[in-house]
Formats: sequence, C-alpha cells, structure tokens
Amino acid sequence: MTTSRVVSTGEDHETVLDNATAAAEKLAATSPADIAGLLRGVAAELDAHTEELVPLAQRESHLPEGRLRGELVRTTFQLRLFADTVEEGAHLKATIDTPDPDWPTGARPDLRRTVLPLGPVLVFAASNFPFAFSVAGGDTASALAAGCPVVVKAHPGHPELSRRTAEIVAGALTSAGAPEGTFALVEGTEQAKAVLLDERVRAGAFTGSNTAGRALFDLACSRNSPIPFYAEMGSVNPAFVTPEAAAGRGAEIARGYLDSYTLGVGQFCTKPGLLLVPSSVAQRFRDVLIPEVEQRAAAPMLNDGIENAFRETLGALGDHAAVETLVSGRRSEGEVGPSLLYTSARELVDNREELTAECFGPASLLVGYSDTDELLEAAGVFTGELTATVHGDEEESIVAPLYRTLRARVGRLVWNGWPTGVSVSHGMQHGGPYPATTAPIHTSVGTAGIERFLRPVSFQNAPRAVLPEALRDGNPLGVPRRVNGRMETPEQG
Amino acid sequence: MTTSRVVSTGEDHETVLDNATAAAEKLAATSPADIAGLLRGVAAELDAHTEELVPLAQRESHLPEGRLRGELVRTTFQLRLFADTVEEGAHLKATIDTPDPDWPTGARPDLRRTVLPLGPVLVFAASNFPFAFSVAGGDTASALAAGCPVVVKAHPGHPELSRRTAEIVAGALTSAGAPEGTFALVEGTEQAKAVLLDERVRAGAFTGSNTAGRALFDLACSRNSPIPFYAEMGSVNPAFVTPEAAAGRGAEIARGYLDSYTLGVGQFCTKPGLLLVPSSVAQRFRDVLIPEVEQRAAAPMLNDGIENAFRETLGALGDHAAVETLVSGRRSEGEVGPSLLYTSARELVDNREELTAECFGPASLLVGYSDTDELLEAAGVFTGELTATVHGDEEESIVAPLYRTLRARVGRLVWNGWPTGVSVSHGMQHGGPYPATTAPIHTSVGTAGIERFLRPVSFQNAPRAVLPEALRDGNPLGVPRRVNGRMETPEQG
Repeated sequence: MTTSRVVSTGEDHETVLDNATAAAEKLAATSPADIAGLLRGVAAELDAHTEELVPLAQRESHLPEGRLRGELVRTTFQLRLFADTVEEGAHLKATIDTPDPDWPTGARPDLRRTVLPLGPVLVFAASNFPFAFSVAGGDTASALAAGCPVVVKAHPGHPELSRRTAEIVAGALTSAGAPEGTFALVEGTEQAKAVLLDERVRAGAFTGSNTAGRALFDLACSRNSPIPFYAEMGSVNPAFVTPEAAAGRGAEIARGYLDSYTLGVGQFCTKPGLLLVPSSVAQRFRDVLIPEVEQRAAAPMLNDGIENAFRETLGALGDHAAVETLVSGRRSEGEVGPSLLYTSARELVDNREELTAECFGPASLLVGYSDTDELLEAAGVFTGELTATVHGDEEESIVAPLYRTLRARVGRLVWNGWPTGVSVSHGMQHGGPYPATTAPIHTSVGTAGIERFLRPVSFQNAPRAVLPEALRDGNPLGVPRRVNGRMETPEQG
Repeated sequence: MTTSRVVSTGEDHETVLDNATAAAEKLAATSPADIAGLLRGVAAELDAHTEELVPLAQRESHLPEGRLRGELVRTTFQLRLFADTVEEGAHLKATIDTPDPDWPTGARPDLRRTVLPLGPVLVFAASNFPFAFSVAGGDTASALAAGCPVVVKAHPGHPELSRRTAEIVAGALTSAGAPEGTFALVEGTEQAKAVLLDERVRAGAFTGSNTAGRALFDLACSRNSPIPFYAEMGSVNPAFVTPEAAAGRGAEIARGYLDSYTLGVGQFCTKPGLLLVPSSVAQRFRDVLIPEVEQRAAAPMLNDGIENAFRETLGALGDHAAVETLVSGRRSEGEVGPSLLYTSARELVDNREELTAECFGPASLLVGYSDTDELLEAAGVFTGELTATVHGDEEESIVAPLYRTLRARVGRLVWNGWPTGVSVSHGMQHGGPYPATTAPIHTSVGTAGIERFLRPVSFQNAPRAVLPEALRDGNPLGVPRRVNGRMETPEQG
C-alpha cells in the first residue's frame, strides 16, 4: 500500500478521489506537529534525490543545472518553512470569545473559531519552474500545510520528472505516516477537467497562462458546487524609471533591466515586460541596450509550445504600427535570443490592450514618456499585475503619486530593484487583481498562501473533548490566539 | 454636496460609480482612526434616528417593535465593534521581513506586506433583517471598515426604510469627513446587475436565497474581470438530539426547538429546519410538540414574495410521499401559523435532495432515526450548512464522531443550544461550504468579515515615505505585526 497513485491519461480517477476523500478526514484530525513532519519528510526525500532529479529536469526543461539546483533548494526550503509556520500556528487563527451575559447584541455564548482544511485540492503544475511551481511546489506545499490531500495535474512539459517527483513525494508521505490518498498525480487535460468538476474536489490552484487559467476558473465556477479556484496567470510587470534615476544611473538601470527580462530565457511570470524611461534619455537607453541585447546568447525555451506562443505574441507586438523593433532576437534551431522593442507612452495609453499583453519569453518593450504627467497616465493603464517596479530617488515628487497609482493595481511594488526573484517568505505577496490572478485577496508564494486552503469553523459552547486543540483552555498547542478581541502571543522559543 | 446619491430604478448609475472610484483612492489613504470615525459617526446617527426608523421598519417588514429595536442596537453595535477592530489593526496583517543576505532562497530584500481596500463594493441587502443585513448591515460595515466605498442594492421589501437609512448613513459619512462617493443606494434588479457587471466594482456581497445568490455569483464570475462575490444563501441547519439527551430532557429540547424554528416567523437563515430524534421517542416529541405548535399564534411574513415562496416550498415538502404533515399551519388573511412535519432518517438519506431543501418560514421537519449509525449516516447527507446543532451529553460515544462528521460540513456547530441568534463577535463564523455560501473560507458576520474586502500588497525595499503607516519602522500605529515570522503584539490599553 502506498500513499499515492500515479494515474495516466485516460485511466479512471475514481480511486484517486475516493482515497483523497478518505485522507481528508484523517488529515483534518492530524496535529500541526504531524503535518509539519509530513512536509519535512517530503523535503528530506527530495533533497536526497537531488542528483537524480536535477539531470532529469535539465533534460526535459532545457534549463541550466545551476538554476535547477537552486530551484530544488527553494522547493525544499519552502516545505520546511511551511512546516515551521504550521507549528507556530498563527495560520490557525484561533479566536476565543468567552461567555458574556452583557454583550450588547444579547448574551454571548462561548464562541471558539479556528480553521479546518477545505478538503482535496487539485493543483495544476506549471512548466517554467519544474520544481518550485510543479509537483512539489508552492501550491502543493500550501495545501499539504493546510492539511488538504493534493491531486497534482502534471505539466506535460516535464512528464518524467513529474512522475519521479510524485513517486518520491508519495514515498516520503507514506514513510512519514500520511494517510493513504494524501497525494496523487494525474496526467492529461481531459482527466484533469474531470477531476476539477468532481464534487469531491474542494479547491483548485493553478500557475500558467491567462487562457488556460481563465478556462479552468470558469469550469470551477460552473460546478453544481462552485469551489475557490486560485489561478496565478499572466503579468507584464511594468517598470518605471523616474527622471532623476534615469539621469543619474541610466546605464546601470538599463543593464539591470536586460538581466532581469532575459533571466531564465524570459520565462518568469515576473519578467519586466515594459520599461518606461523619459523620452529625453530614451536614445541613451537604446544606445546602451541594443549592443548588449544583440550580444546575449540565444538559448532553448522550455518546450515547443512555449516557443511557438512566444513567437506568435512577439510577432504580433512587433507588427503593431506603434511599435519599433530595436533588436529582433536571433532564432536558430531550437534557440531563441532576446528581443527589444520600442514605443511611446502616448501609444501605450492609446493601445493599452495590445501593448500590455504578456509576451512570455525574452522580449521587452522600452517606452519613452514625455513628462511625469504622462508617466502617471501610463501607470494608470494597468489593471492587475503581479508586480510593478519603480527606479527613482526618494526626494522626487513623482514618487508618491506613482506609488499611489501603482499600489492599487499590483501585488508587489519593487523599489530600485527588479521583480524577478520572488522570495519565499512571510512578507511576500505574489498575486494581484485580475488578470494577474483570479483571487486578488490571496498569494501563491509565501507562507500566507496556506490560508487559501483553510475554512473557518466556530464551536459554540462545545464540550472540551470535541474542540480542536488550538481552541482548548490553557492553549496546549501554544499558538497565537485572539481572546475577547485581544491578541495573545505565547512565549516564542 | 453630499457623500451619497440615492439612485432610483432606471436612472443612470455612471455618476455613482465615478464617485465611488474617486472615493476609493481617498479612502485607501485614510488612516484607521479616521475610518473608525466614519463607522462611529454612522452608528451615532442611526441611534439618533431610532424613533423614526423603527416605525418605518415595522410598517414595511411586519416585524414587531421589540425585535426591530433590538436589531437596530445590533446594527449600531456592529459598526462600533468594527471601528474598535479597525483601530486595533490586526486586520491589517502587517508583516515585515527584514533583509537577510543568507536567506536560503537567495538574499532576501526588505519585504513589508499589509492590506489595502479592494475598491468599490456592491452590497445586496436582505429583507429579513431590515437593519442588520440591509443598508447599514454587516456587509456594509465590513466593506466600510476595510476602507471600500459601498453601493447598496436596496431590497424592495422595505423601500422607504432603505431610502431613509441611506440618507442618514450618507449624511453621517459626510459629517464625519468621508469623501464624496463613499456611499450610494441603487434600486431595481436590472440596475444592480449593470452595476455588478461594471469593471469599476471590485467585489460583491449578498444575503438571500440560493436562486438569487447563485445567479449573481455567476454574473460576477462571467465578467471580463471576475470579482470575489460573497453570497450567504440558504441553509437547513439540522439539529441532532442524541439518545441520552432525548431521554433526559426531551420535552425541554422540544420546546427550545419550537421556539427556535418559529422565531421571527421562521425567517432566519439559521432556522433549524430539521430535528433528528431517536425514533423510539419520536412519538413523545410529537405529543409534546403538536399541541404547542397548534397553539402558536399566526403572524404576517415579511412580504408577499416571501410568503408565496414559503407556501410553495412547504407545499412541495408536505406533498412528498415520505413526509407526514403533523401540523399544517393556519393561514388566514396575510398571516401564517407554524407547521410541523415528520419523516424518518432512512427517508431523509434516500430523498436527501428534496428533504433538505430550505423552506424559509415557520416550518420544520422532525426526523426519527433508528440508531446512532443511522444518525451518523443522516449527518453525512449535508454538504454545506451555516450551522448544525447537537443536543447531547458529553460522555456519549456518539458525540465525537458526530462532531467530526458535522464540522466538515458547516460554519458553526452549536452544543446544547439553538442556532438562531448569531452573535456579532470575533469568534463568530457565519458561513459554510456551498450551498450555504459561495465563499467557504469567509464569514459574513463578525469582525473577521472585514478581510473579505482587503487585498494584500508587498512593498519591497520601499522608501519610508511611501510605506503605509502600519509597516513603518517603530510601528507608529501600534498594530500587531509579524516580524521575521514572529508575532509582535504591542501593549494593549
């Protein structure tokens, strides 16, 4: 008996969901310490298989070894950080209101509120992070940390890696004592849709394109019982260079921009797809950038589907009447070099739909703005972005209004840096209004992502024996609790 | 100039949404103390108009004066409790990660995360609480507390009260310094749908029937930019009486049940629509209940629409082959008396869809179960309920498995009490899996409801001047914060 099943395309998924449903009840009764043990068990086994997994990932993703090693470290660190978070227990949102006969809305009973796992979660893996956003990635870690069984839809871009990772995760979960049905892998779009539409699945999570994310969100909402569907989709991640920053350190900013938009062959959802600079210095940016872009090596993209989509969206952008192609990336057999395009902020405002479409790959659009009024107007065209970046000097008067405009439109605002590189941490927000995501009040990176899979329940006048431990008198778990409206944080070791 | 506009059916709503959009930006920059001031200002003005509002509510809702006075107290208490909560600041979820060059996923920047208001919210008022779930009710209070402008769709069941309440709310907001556009009332279904589909609206909240709630949820999801839509819908709120409780205090439980399901003419979303008792004592419950039900006075329902729907759903339930009508409520001109029906747990399991449909009004279904296995099986038929109730003795072995089964299906579990009476408090959860709500991880009553309208944003390496105050060094707002993963709770007065 193993904890997982790997189900191939077309095979019946009934057993997977029967097992996940049975596991859900057992996991809901599992202590935070034991949940943490499962996460750490998975992390340890993945680490132990580094020398097997990294070459497999290289072969299927065309990503370089160093990047993949780092990504696997990120993946297992994430699992361990979530384990620590689960043990600390703030995610349980334990809240206790003691009885109050004088409560103004009528005598208040003993009310104790905490969260319980939603139930089986379907995770759609992404192709561009074969470890960190795939089988054992952030969504899987979040759902397991919440105590939810996970069914992963494998990304077809790295099938062998997906299967092998799933075997290792499943084995680790079994060894760590997880109930049968805690984890499974399914393959194939039709099978995944059938699972998503099954009433036993209680939430979905996705990282990928707008087209696929929206289609799956629509399916999740169309069910007899709609479920939360957390899709992290496309983003153009505009970056804004103020006049002072452009004047003072334009060349440095230009090189940082190039490094950021070509990192990982431009295959990051946080790639800066636009850089807005004063048109008065745009020529200098072009002079610095063009030779450097031309010299950058071409590299293979993740897979043919990604490459074809990139060529198509880049072609449409380059063909737009308002866009000038400065460097058309070399394209040899199976390799793609970086591209650079140019337009004006006026054209960006007037053609916002076409010019703010995500172009997933090593291409970006340099944009010249005439003055800070136009800069602000351009900032206002965005509706939902994972990130925006500002390069500026603190004293400039444009900074405050620019931040006010941008913070209403993005999940993360970067100052004098670059949006690629998403720290797995407590303070991270990887999300944003639609179309960046379908769930603007949540994050898919960082420990706050766990709450997506937890559902509050209040216990009124409950006998002690049936209360979740987090709510019992004396706080046996030692978790932060809100008692009669006041936060009580236990001593921390 | 006033803060609000009351827009009648068919009138153009463009101005309302233009103003709400302008207000959104100003409110997002308003301090928690000033937001609290707005809430308290509204509470004070509503209190000051009690003698005007209560008679108006009586005339339009047919609810008794005492109930309405209590409900207005609840409404203004709720506003003040939310003001206190906003000032305390835990809802801001302030999180600070200081820079860490050795962070395992790569050097960690300074990351500071808090929440910002989502933007204009459309609130659909309910008819059964003309104060507490209407124009100035829980959804409005939650959205205002989050710093969101509110557009309320008036319920046609109490149009004059809605307009007058809106005028008072708008006047109070203006007096308290709220920006133009913070509040507006719209009337008419078509107008409300147009507002819901407008891209300027960023979230919706609803209390009412499953049919209307699902239709509006589907509209919200169908938008070019889908938005969160928090619908609190129907529920049958099953109550379970264990063998020991039935034997020891059956008569007392029977009377409590009758009081609960007939309270407010059965027009509560938490009305216990089912009471499961051992079939061995079902006859005793019937003997106690039937004469009492027959003696209860008839009373008018909220409006003709509610009464017609009640007669229809009760008729269908009473006509079901598995259901015996014990008391068919008297129905005189414009008045309805309580009804009582009977079936077995076996029939409930076999006809779950028909027998667990909500019947909104003074009727309930007594259900006899043969043994505790059948009791557990019956508990398993529910998929999403606002509440479930257990009457039992702590020592009984059935209590633990019954709680395990029910807690996976409901938002609130009541022990030896009744579900009607929903305390406005920190520990309250008024929600549940679909079909109780469309948003299982949220509550529509209690201070935790504020988070529905707040969206996290991370500031990376941000200059101090553009940081929200909650994230600034030295914690000038004195709010609870998570710093490098540890909760820090300031001294509380």
